[in-house]
Amino acid sequence: MSKSLSANDLKKVCKVPFFEGLSIDDISNLLNHSSVIETPKGRLLFSQGDVADKFYVILEGRVKLFLTNEEGEESIIEIYGAQSSFAEAAMFASARFPVNGETTSASRLIQVEGPSFLRVLQENKEMCQKITTQMARRYRSLQNEIIHLKTHSPAQRLGVFFLSLVGDAQGQDVVLPYSKNLIAARVGMKPESLSRALGRLKEIGVICEKDRLRVENLESLQAFCKD
Amino acid sequence: MSKSLSANDLKKVCKVPFFEGLSIDDISNLLNHSSVIETPKGRLLFSQGDVADKFYVILEGRVKLFLTNEEGEESIIEIYGAQSSFAEAAMFASARFPVNGETTSASRLIQVEGPSFLRVLQENKEMCQKITTQMARRYRSLQNEIIHLKTHSPAQRLGVFFLSLVGDAQGQDVVLPYSKNLIAARVGMKPESLSRALGRLKEIGVICEKDRLRVENLESLQAFCKD
Repeated sequence: MSKSLSANDLKKVCKVPFFEGLSIDDISNLLNHSSVIETPKGRLLFSQGDVADKFYVILEGRVKLFLTNEEGEESIIEIYGAQSSFAEAAMFASARFPVNGETTSASRLIQVEGPSFLRVLQENKEMCQKITTQMARRYRSLQNEIIHLKTHSPAQRLGVFFLSLVGDAQGQDVVLPYSKNLIAARVGMKPESLSRALGRLKEIGVICEKDRLRVENLESLQAFCKD
Repeated sequence: MSKSLSANDLKKVCKVPFFEGLSIDDISNLLNHSSVIETPKGRLLFSQGDVADKFYVILEGRVKLFLTNEEGEESIIEIYGAQSSFAEAAMFASARFPVNGETTSASRLIQVEGPSFLRVLQENKEMCQKITTQMARRYRSLQNEIIHLKTHSPAQRLGVFFLSLVGDAQGQDVVLPYSKNLIAARVGMKPESLSRALGRLKEIGVICEKDRLRVENLESLQAFCKD
């Protein structure tokens, strides 16, 4: 099911980091030829190798990017939630999608048509500049992810993710936002390393059982993650 | 020592991926206020937290980006060689350097002044667009690095790097381009994991001793890296 953007949808797009700094009129122009699609869970949006002539904004729901190997085993690369965008870079680079994209819950997405988006951008110097700045910011956040992947152990990366979940709720149960396997993928850990990392964290009072997480002592976990 | 760019330097910049698609006049305009610096090995170019109001193009030499922890131990994040550029994204994002940068050999570098670079870019729609495309391409290559870090084991990542070094020189000795510790950092491996990964590769006939590498059977290594 595909339909055009409502004023309410446009307001949501304003909060997507990639469109930060653009006015609602700019965004409306840029998304002039885009449409809203409503999909059930498990809808394949694109496959690795497809021409990247579009990108997506998530209004509601969640999307995973993943690869499968020859044995059909899945590696999850990234998970995006509401008010985020993905696959812009592949579109801008006129490239092909390096991964597969699939909804992991019922979702409302804006499918942004690349060619008309680029046409509007070409006519407007200020917008082009703002989009370049946003691209640079996203580039920097990827760089930070690489720094994190290269300098922290899997258990430390899991610890950092847990810290972001618990906030300052020391000693209280927090519900995990998605399955442990998805969390492992999110922090760049193979599923088979997960139980070792959880064991290591348990030693410093981080209890993760079923869909619940409890951190007995925030300071210990913070120290462990910084080590 | 600082001096202005020669015609020969400009030609080298044309080959830097970030400037691809721009004419020599465009590049000359963009680098109008930039200067060439000649530095010995071990010169600190910037420190983590410094305002990123410039970026660099390497004409000759090599630069490492690194972090140090509280014990003074160094983690190398990336190594750049001749005809590459680095720190553009931090400059575009008007941010601070997330890492330290230091030459690891005597180098000739262009220090590009951010504000004047951005001023020229703002006046020229076509250039802005080309630079956005380049930023998107670099973003994609970082994404690919993250995919690689998340889906391959350290030994596989080392294997992929070794494959790039030996080309089709099966059974022949190849000299390593830099120290094993730098190579470990380059593929995102802690130095302490290096000997385990080398041991794993030795089992399939990849011999790496001192500064030399020999791959007895390219097909076995390719199969191992894909597994």
